[in-house]
Amino acid sequence: MNVPLTPIRFLYRARDQFGRKVGIVDEPLSWTYQQYYERCVQLANLLLSWNLKPSSRVAFLSYNTHYLLEAYYGVLLAQGIFIPLNIRLNPSDFRFILNDCQAEFLFFHPDFLPTIKHILPDLPGVRKFISLEPCAETDWVETDHCDILLSKESKELAFDVLAVDENATAELFYTSGTTDQPKGVMLTHRNLYLHALETAIAVEAKETDVRLHTIPLFHVNGWGTPQFLTCVGGRHVMLKKFSPEEVLQQIERQKVSVFSLVPSMATALLNYKNLKKYNVSSVKKIFLGGSTIEPYLVQTMEDAFQCQCLGGYGLTETSPVLTLATPKSYLELDEENQYQIKATTGYPIPGVDLKIVDDSNNELPWNGKSIGEIVVRGDMVMKGYWQRPEETRQAFKGGWFHTGDMAKISTDGYLLIVDRKKDIIVSGGENISSLELEKTLQIHQSVSECAVIAVPDKRWGEIPKALVVMKPGKHLNEDELLDHCRKYLAPFKVPASINFLDSLPRGGTGKVLKQELRKKY
Amino acid sequence: MNVPLTPIRFLYRARDQFGRKVGIVDEPLSWTYQQYYERCVQLANLLLSWNLKPSSRVAFLSYNTHYLLEAYYGVLLAQGIFIPLNIRLNPSDFRFILNDCQAEFLFFHPDFLPTIKHILPDLPGVRKFISLEPCAETDWVETDHCDILLSKESKELAFDVLAVDENATAELFYTSGTTDQPKGVMLTHRNLYLHALETAIAVEAKETDVRLHTIPLFHVNGWGTPQFLTCVGGRHVMLKKFSPEEVLQQIERQKVSVFSLVPSMATALLNYKNLKKYNVSSVKKIFLGGSTIEPYLVQTMEDAFQCQCLGGYGLTETSPVLTLATPKSYLELDEENQYQIKATTGYPIPGVDLKIVDDSNNELPWNGKSIGEIVVRGDMVMKGYWQRPEETRQAFKGGWFHTGDMAKISTDGYLLIVDRKKDIIVSGGENISSLELEKTLQIHQSVSECAVIAVPDKRWGEIPKALVVMKPGKHLNEDELLDHCRKYLAPFKVPASINFLDSLPRGGTGKVLKQELRKKY
Repeated sequence: MNVPLTPIRFLYRARDQFGRKVGIVDEPLSWTYQQYYERCVQLANLLLSWNLKPSSRVAFLSYNTHYLLEAYYGVLLAQGIFIPLNIRLNPSDFRFILNDCQAEFLFFHPDFLPTIKHILPDLPGVRKFISLEPCAETDWVETDHCDILLSKESKELAFDVLAVDENATAELFYTSGTTDQPKGVMLTHRNLYLHALETAIAVEAKETDVRLHTIPLFHVNGWGTPQFLTCVGGRHVMLKKFSPEEVLQQIERQKVSVFSLVPSMATALLNYKNLKKYNVSSVKKIFLGGSTIEPYLVQTMEDAFQCQCLGGYGLTETSPVLTLATPKSYLELDEENQYQIKATTGYPIPGVDLKIVDDSNNELPWNGKSIGEIVVRGDMVMKGYWQRPEETRQAFKGGWFHTGDMAKISTDGYLLIVDRKKDIIVSGGENISSLELEKTLQIHQSVSECAVIAVPDKRWGEIPKALVVMKPGKHLNEDELLDHCRKYLAPFKVPASINFLDSLPRGGTGKVLKQELRKKY
Repeated sequence: MNVPLTPIRFLYRARDQFGRKVGIVDEPLSWTYQQYYERCVQLANLLLSWNLKPSSRVAFLSYNTHYLLEAYYGVLLAQGIFIPLNIRLNPSDFRFILNDCQAEFLFFHPDFLPTIKHILPDLPGVRKFISLEPCAETDWVETDHCDILLSKESKELAFDVLAVDENATAELFYTSGTTDQPKGVMLTHRNLYLHALETAIAVEAKETDVRLHTIPLFHVNGWGTPQFLTCVGGRHVMLKKFSPEEVLQQIERQKVSVFSLVPSMATALLNYKNLKKYNVSSVKKIFLGGSTIEPYLVQTMEDAFQCQCLGGYGLTETSPVLTLATPKSYLELDEENQYQIKATTGYPIPGVDLKIVDDSNNELPWNGKSIGEIVVRGDMVMKGYWQRPEETRQAFKGGWFHTGDMAKISTDGYLLIVDRKKDIIVSGGENISSLELEKTLQIHQSVSECAVIAVPDKRWGEIPKALVVMKPGKHLNEDELLDHCRKYLAPFKVPASINFLDSLPRGGTGKVLKQELRKKY
């Protein structure tokens, strides 16, 4: 028999099997899985009372709180499509996204009232604006805030799992758009269900897990946690905003056993002055992802938290997890090599088929040398881009999803990301990794941040140009920095020119907007 | 994107990610996952060279060896349907099954040559008989044995995973038939794929697992191990036949970390005189299933092997795993209660929705008292019975699969099997569990084995009758044994009569054939 694959089944399982367990903690509040289920149902009933039609879009603009976690299931129970918005985006991004997906409802934290007010005239399609918490009175926002509205709704809902179309879109996530306008990534019920099972196996998720939501749930499907942790009945501990102090307090108080970090968060934790004052003995596993990881960072984290620390890799388009850097037992690695392996982007989790290809879509060998674009086929790969058939067709050319990331694969199957495809500079037939140049510039003690882009050149086709922001109080000229580069780089890789800027343009997720730089130069 | 859900993807993952690892051990031989893949491909190529048509049936009659594990993938790569036969069945069962499924190929261990020869005239549909190992010359068996045939085949196969129909039948397993004629259970590619993922989560399968195949692979899909262990890249250690000596030797030599047992196997291990002479420190987990488990058995196993020991429950029709008795962390159980819980049949693994219902299909409460039939809906529930639309319709009445097992569910969601539905005796409106009576008889020191059945009665509708085999050298009459029963049982439950037999009729899996007893009395 085929039961539709939908994450809603995880909610039912949590309610039935772990109903009395505290499933969600958002200090000072907490909810059992039975209560969590009821709140999700109340949200669904609220939306249905407003006549939400199947597949209508419901957006949330919220910090990383229990409201967001409830929406992951509440919107789906109402048969809507859930759109978690990245709070770090600009008003113009919100305007674009809300119109692109024609969202009918916007739930928001009152902190974002001014932002929404600013773009209000441009949001004719949004039927209701609902504040998650008490909010200054305004005529365009629902009079009651979310909790009051929910409290009026029934905690029961006759929902037929068998009626779910597993291939229907459940979530729309907008890509951060470092290379283009944001695009809506359609993740289906089936994508989310299978991704959860496959990630749960890879990360060895279990009922005893107490997971701190260090990664906001509005980022790339919360790295899959809303689904896989609920499936196994683990405990969700919400973290409104990341700060080392808050993370360490939560670890100690809630006996957190697992969490994920981007490298800059890990560095912030390690540099935090009071790190050693907290009891972090409950921590069993830390996952690192989002950008390149140094083996030294893995080692330092493992030492500081006395636990296993692993790198990984994923994309919004893939729900997101594709790989995890678990050491393969038969490699019999010594300690140093263990760190090297754990700092790679890892190897494919179950359900992922992955290869690297050249520009003609020919597979390249796993020799640790050949660099090609990562293409994937898998259960967690999106259905396509929302109302963008041409971009979707492009992304799936040859029947594989093209990630746009360039990588090598070691002989043991570990993936090593080299660069974004668009960030590879092709100069006189040579591939130059902008990432490599950036790393080289970064080690100079006067450099605060930098970006390397390709600029057109009559002779070489493209040549690398560096944009550099100096540390406060430091002085440096172009020649000094080029000398530094020549020490580390092959001559053809040395930037053709360097400009000094006060700051780099960044998008909502903090990524440098290279396309803006490219336009300018 | 939707990639067809098929276990074949696990084989490719194992080849790609763990190709250099020793994946299969069948002493004195062993194979890396690359070599295992190649053997599977050679088997597929052999079948294709014989013009195997898609969905044709290929049967194996083999001890628990690497040949059987290869067939799990080799037959599927050839697009055939795989039928592993239980070697303990009778010739008449083999005759029935091979004709019922119209098997075209029969691979067999030479030990079964006489058995097959016996029914040969009744197997007109079988095109080829292939001996797995060198075999006495006969005109109806392929001249070359399997290894020689395979060695002539290519190790490469162009197989398109995307062309697989995930809802096509991949395996046919014949139910043991304690209640009826054997029926072919159709497990689809999707069933097997999802069951593997969901079981892997429940048993926390990982790449470092070294699993001893104590449960024959021809039993109820080998409890899912051919798929989930290959998926995570664990190591398969074959065990041709169960014996305590052999199990303990393999544990010590192969550093086995996990295995499954039926209770009688566990008892045999515990009673084995040389148990303490072996180093079993590598063992991390033992799973118990197949029939009722006593908490004392769990405790004794955990003490003897210094590891976790858990009960579980499943059926051929459900691929098979449905529940596992992992203690829920928030119950905060003391040691004694831990054993009680671990000896239950557990709670549903991910992907399973389960309830108990009365005869009118009304759900019964989880109160530890109400007894109803277990019905399930889930990803691992079979497509139906092979060419038996009426039995299939019956089994799925109301949209749930009816297991035929009667159980209570505790307030914490743990399932407690009471009896087979057909083994419940309804006497004067009271339900009497034949299992309860059997347990009561069993504790009498003179009783070796027993079975309780319902016999018709004018006044009560049905009354219980006991069939008892005494221990060698023991003497006992009916009245003495009835007195014993009266000490433990409510008056209405005491057997109406007792007959003494020399032995009980048993089917291929060792289960007592109660329908034979019912016919007789």
